[in-house]
Amino acid sequence: MGKAYAIALSQVSTVYEMPGRAIRRVIATSDAAGAQSRARDFGFERGTGDWRDLLVADDVQAVGIASPTFLHAEMALAALQAGKHVIYEKPLGRTAREAAQMAKAARASGRVTMAGFNYIKNPATQLAREIVEGGEIGEVIHFSATHVEDYLMDPTLPHDWRQVAANVGRAGALGDIASHAINLAHFLCGPLAEVVGMRQTVHAQRPAADGMAEVENDDQAQFLMRFASGVPGSIAASRIHAGRKMGLTYEVVGTKGTVRFDQERMAELQFYDAGDRRARQGFRTILAAPGHGDYGRFCTGAGHGFGYNDMIVVEMAEFIRAIWQSSAAWPVFAAAVHTAAVVDAVLASCDEGGWIDVKTIESEAWA
Amino acid sequence: MGKAYAIALSQVSTVYEMPGRAIRRVIATSDAAGAQSRARDFGFERGTGDWRDLLVADDVQAVGIASPTFLHAEMALAALQAGKHVIYEKPLGRTAREAAQMAKAARASGRVTMAGFNYIKNPATQLAREIVEGGEIGEVIHFSATHVEDYLMDPTLPHDWRQVAANVGRAGALGDIASHAINLAHFLCGPLAEVVGMRQTVHAQRPAADGMAEVENDDQAQFLMRFASGVPGSIAASRIHAGRKMGLTYEVVGTKGTVRFDQERMAELQFYDAGDRRARQGFRTILAAPGHGDYGRFCTGAGHGFGYNDMIVVEMAEFIRAIWQSSAAWPVFAAAVHTAAVVDAVLASCDEGGWIDVKTIESEAWA
Amino acid sequence: MGKAYAIALSQVSTVYEMPGRAIRRVIATSDAAGAQSRARDFGFERGTGDWRDLLVADDVQAVGIASPTFLHAEMALAALQAGKHVIYEKPLGRTAREAAQMAKAARASGRVTMAGFNYIKNPATQLAREIVEGGEIGEVIHFSATHVEDYLMDPTLPHDWRQVAANVGRAGALGDIASHAINLAHFLCGPLAEVVGMRQTVHAQRPAADGMAEVENDDQAQFLMRFASGVPGSIAASRIHAGRKMGLTYEVVGTKGTVRFDQERMAELQFYDAGDRRARQGFRTILAAPGHGDYGRFCTGAGHGFGYNDMIVVEMAEFIRAIWQSSAAWPVFAAAVHTAAVVDAVLASCDEGGWIDVKTIESEAWA
Amino acid sequence: MGKAYAIALSQVSTVYEMPGRAIRRVIATSDAAGAQSRARDFGFERGTGDWRDLLVADDVQAVGIASPTFLHAEMALAALQAGKHVIYEKPLGRTAREAAQMAKAARASGRVTMAGFNYIKNPATQLAREIVEGGEIGEVIHFSATHVEDYLMDPTLPHDWRQVAANVGRAGALGDIASHAINLAHFLCGPLAEVVGMRQTVHAQRPAADGMAEVENDDQAQFLMRFASGVPGSIAASRIHAGRKMGLTYEVVGTKGTVRFDQERMAELQFYDAGDRRARQGFRTILAAPGHGDYGRFCTGAGHGFGYNDMIVVEMAEFIRAIWQSSAAWPVFAAAVHTAAVVDAVLASCDEGGWIDVKTIESEAWA
Repeated sequence: MGKAYAIALSQVSTVYEMPGRAIRRVIATSDAAGAQSRARDFGFERGTGDWRDLLVADDVQAVGIASPTFLHAEMALAALQAGKHVIYEKPLGRTAREAAQMAKAARASGRVTMAGFNYIKNPATQLAREIVEGGEIGEVIHFSATHVEDYLMDPTLPHDWRQVAANVGRAGALGDIASHAINLAHFLCGPLAEVVGMRQTVHAQRPAADGMAEVENDDQAQFLMRFASGVPGSIAASRIHAGRKMGLTYEVVGTKGTVRFDQERMAELQFYDAGDRRARQGFRTILAAPGHGDYGRFCTGAGHGFGYNDMIVVEMAEFIRAIWQSSAAWPVFAAAVHTAAVVDAVLASCDEGGWIDVKTIESEAWA
Repeated sequence: MGKAYAIALSQVSTVYEMPGRAIRRVIATSDAAGAQSRARDFGFERGTGDWRDLLVADDVQAVGIASPTFLHAEMALAALQAGKHVIYEKPLGRTAREAAQMAKAARASGRVTMAGFNYIKNPATQLAREIVEGGEIGEVIHFSATHVEDYLMDPTLPHDWRQVAANVGRAGALGDIASHAINLAHFLCGPLAEVVGMRQTVHAQRPAADGMAEVENDDQAQFLMRFASGVPGSIAASRIHAGRKMGLTYEVVGTKGTVRFDQERMAELQFYDAGDRRARQGFRTILAAPGHGDYGRFCTGAGHGFGYNDMIVVEMAEFIRAIWQSSAAWPVFAAAVHTAAVVDAVLASCDEGGWIDVKTIESEAWA
Repeated sequence: MGKAYAIALSQVSTVYEMPGRAIRRVIATSDAAGAQSRARDFGFERGTGDWRDLLVADDVQAVGIASPTFLHAEMALAALQAGKHVIYEKPLGRTAREAAQMAKAARASGRVTMAGFNYIKNPATQLAREIVEGGEIGEVIHFSATHVEDYLMDPTLPHDWRQVAANVGRAGALGDIASHAINLAHFLCGPLAEVVGMRQTVHAQRPAADGMAEVENDDQAQFLMRFASGVPGSIAASRIHAGRKMGLTYEVVGTKGTVRFDQERMAELQFYDAGDRRARQGFRTILAAPGHGDYGRFCTGAGHGFGYNDMIVVEMAEFIRAIWQSSAAWPVFAAAVHTAAVVDAVLASCDEGGWIDVKTIESEAWA
Repeated sequence: MGKAYAIALSQVSTVYEMPGRAIRRVIATSDAAGAQSRARDFGFERGTGDWRDLLVADDVQAVGIASPTFLHAEMALAALQAGKHVIYEKPLGRTAREAAQMAKAARASGRVTMAGFNYIKNPATQLAREIVEGGEIGEVIHFSATHVEDYLMDPTLPHDWRQVAANVGRAGALGDIASHAINLAHFLCGPLAEVVGMRQTVHAQRPAADGMAEVENDDQAQFLMRFASGVPGSIAASRIHAGRKMGLTYEVVGTKGTVRFDQERMAELQFYDAGDRRARQGFRTILAAPGHGDYGRFCTGAGHGFGYNDMIVVEMAEFIRAIWQSSAAWPVFAAAVHTAAVVDAVLASCDEGGWIDVKTIESEAWA
């Protein structure tokens, strides 16, 4: 994600009209030599092996965090304390409590914060929200989503830090991947009220330097949910779902129509309008075009294509705009606490076996 | 479904080589005049307004039941007692108990029985089972299915017998529609062990002759499940899912591949084989062809198309073959009891709020 | 196709309301023993090894011809002379001249004739015609079609009668397969005025009993065309197109919209309506449903599927209806002469290298 | 395209490892004030209202031309003469002769030149070429392509410079759009030998300031072709094809398989491998992934998406690499002359009515 951030920063002020340009000042990695080389590759003015150098750099206004999850809280808190604006890669922390701690610091600081749930920035999804919010599909009656990939389906892939609970929390696919789907649900249909779920670690051990090591979190997870609005739904997540490379999909069903989306065809939205005349009804494949979200910033021709990195450019533009306009960029840290609370609620449901109230978990996290 | 049965019977002995031909003797409807006209239209020798006439007709070997659900048990029990073989349209009864009653009678009678879950007869699904059973996708790790349609999405559609609990049971979409998906799950991955679910009646009242009448069962339902094998999964069903006309879909994920299917493209199976060489992997669209199930009986050219009625011809052929060979045609009544028990278990979960053991419900039904 | 005809005849009077039923009297094959066995399998009353027996059978009203092409003319002429109605499998003959000879006999006889271009009977294509004729896509400005399959792509497949010019004419894929696409063009956009084309025999020899034998007609062919209306278009045909099993596709572009179709997804029509409001435009996938062609005769539920054999049932119903109502069933033999003339015109273009006038060829055939 | 170039230049040295960075020195537009504002928006150091300023700027190494077609030759010749490397937006000129003039100057200059046929830079298409060149689909036997869009389908859109022959040549869709498909054909299957075609101006007049003005070139065009290798094929182009927004599609059929592509789903390649085992064959949807072209430079996850601007980044990277390595970047100007000659050959065929030899046209252009 470090490179993705750099690519986005390099072009954001060309894609968008901005009062100034984003300058890549310092990149911090775990060793000084690597940082120099990364700085050169990624267009930063300088590199450092100590991330705390960024905090004292007067020419640094904002910090982007793309470190392993267990460092998120420490880094974000330090950056906010140093008066920096902060954007970080999801998830917000290992637990809702950690997330809330960061969100509280964010509020106290008055700085701009943003959680990197980049998929909601896709023009097709911006269009989906416009359709849902505008009542074009009537009243929402069902939501379902998946975020399934297969990057860990091979059981001979080596054990790594993402499979250690101390690093990322107890949630595996549930934290790393489902969090995108949860945030999308939140974005499209509002906050969740309760969940019931299950999860599985299919490949319980993976090869490590010294024999097999335990995988301490889930490979896949599934849950049912009710939104605060009462709408029912479901989410499934997996990192071992054979064949799906970017299976972030959702479907929002309403009383008058339906929208559905698959990130593997990220520049399309399927839209069914029950108002179409009889015998001519069917799902329409709407290709992303000017007028849908920020598509027109990137390309003036409809259906010409929109890519993964483009979503991150949109995200960076929103973050930067929030800084210069002293406004907010959704999802702010506080919004991301909700996502973390849903993850914790599903974990609790897996432990305890029934429906879990999300609000209770979220309140406890903030307490 | 009466017409569908008639169409299937008219052609079955032309499509298949059989020692004899299926003869349509008597059709029974609720009134005698209508029965005569239906007999003429549907190619039956005679019609009757009293279904009990079939029981005493010596030239009738087998009975097909396509009546409203609340009559299934009575008719099936009478037909079995009269020594007829019986095929009926799902669901088996209003409750698992009623289904088990029919299944017990079936066993006692020694007659051939078959529950009309015709979708499993589709060549694409027969292929899916061959792939799953043959281990081509490795060990199964996840199953999901939907059966969603929109035939009742319009809230101004009149109230009818299908919305009255006394007629069809407390399960609406859950009984009428989800039962297909449950049977498919059973067919592809074996019996279920436990479920947790929810259901909603979105349009709680519908117009009747004398004002608005209560809808006594669900418009949509969703549940998570665990198979007896331990495999996790989920099913969603709806009769108000805007845009889906025949959204019977399933996906079986294994450790080495995936198959997925959508009845709206019923002559295709999507197959991902992780054994394909790197950089050439992807879901394959396999078109139904000779070699897949009974496709070759209908057409010698691959990919030429396979239709809804063709599935029912396959079903009838299996039923007839079972009669002349004194063998069994899956799903026999006993197998359909499992489907009914799953429906009852989901109802219980909706009432009580947690995971429900299917085996307990099923045992009680048989008791 | 013999079996396909038998399947269609077995069910046609169940699917449709008819004043009587179609009775399968006699089946003729090349040997008497085989004919008996086929009669049994396909539900005919009797079989014969001499097709001329049908001509003198008083209980035979209509004859269906599914023989090799070189027998079409002889059989059809004899049947018409014997006062039978005739339906035959395309193509009409080996040349436009032979086709015209049959058409002239048909006119003289006053009998009902029909050329078996069954694909136009598909509800999706019936809908396409309704959309085009109703002006829903504005004025037509372009038509393109393919009929590509791969049943001969394997060069080790044995040489057979279809590769001998004396049997089927000089046109290979161009006659056997392109004729469907040409008939579709005719059905949707009217007759053709001129063509320019090319064709190739990729596998010039195939294994025969005694070594390799010459393939005397084309494996694939392509041509541009102008309709009599002035609309431009193109058709490509192949019997060696890797991966396509039933690649009969077409697209009709108009000034206000577009329809497109692929027989491999035969129960769908893609429809783009430029009148849809901005930012919500896209191709709609319309699933075949009651109201589209004769779909409702087969199934009352939308999107439930429609198969290859169902198209032939529609065709047979039209043929039978024309007999009992003394009306015409498109395409009558005379209409099929046009298709044959287009094939001959493309052959001439391949020989001579430029644009060829279809009307001249067609006039000469009738002369 | 000016903005697209700027976006690409802004990120190219972040996406790729390069010995230096691309610096945007000067942007020239038609007026000085606009140039200043564009310079600011697009990240150039300065702007000018006189494009000749670039020629004398010592700090300018390379020039990108995104002007109207009629200025291409003049600008490119001047830039080459001034010792600049040149990349320009297709087409190369108004005629093959103009293109050849530029190509001769390019050769004489020894500078790096590149024609902006960016679509061939797409990872999916790079994969297609790898599959075709590696013999994975056997011997190529057929090629077809379309480039159809609908940006001018509305007849009330105003007349503009692109519809004036003096500006862009006699070829409309044939020049502006078909040239992409021709270049793709060239890229995938080598040069063309002969063509026969037709073209139409459907909307012959469009509203101008003072009444209706003539449209002097074609709205759509279609042609058959033979490659120098003997392989047959076809191309269709349109700017009024209702519903298609970026309908650049191609299909390459071989004796052992097929690849097909649609730019509206630009991150997918369809691949049929006849070597797959029987009853498991089908087109595979291969999602763009690391290992396919330059995809891995942009994103490390398979199937995450690839956009329109990303293709231009690849193109710019190749151009820049050619400069620093003193190598060539395909298509160099000389290669683009072939595309222009094919366009001219189709024009000649439309005028004269038969097959036209491309080599003759190309030789005359160079003469």
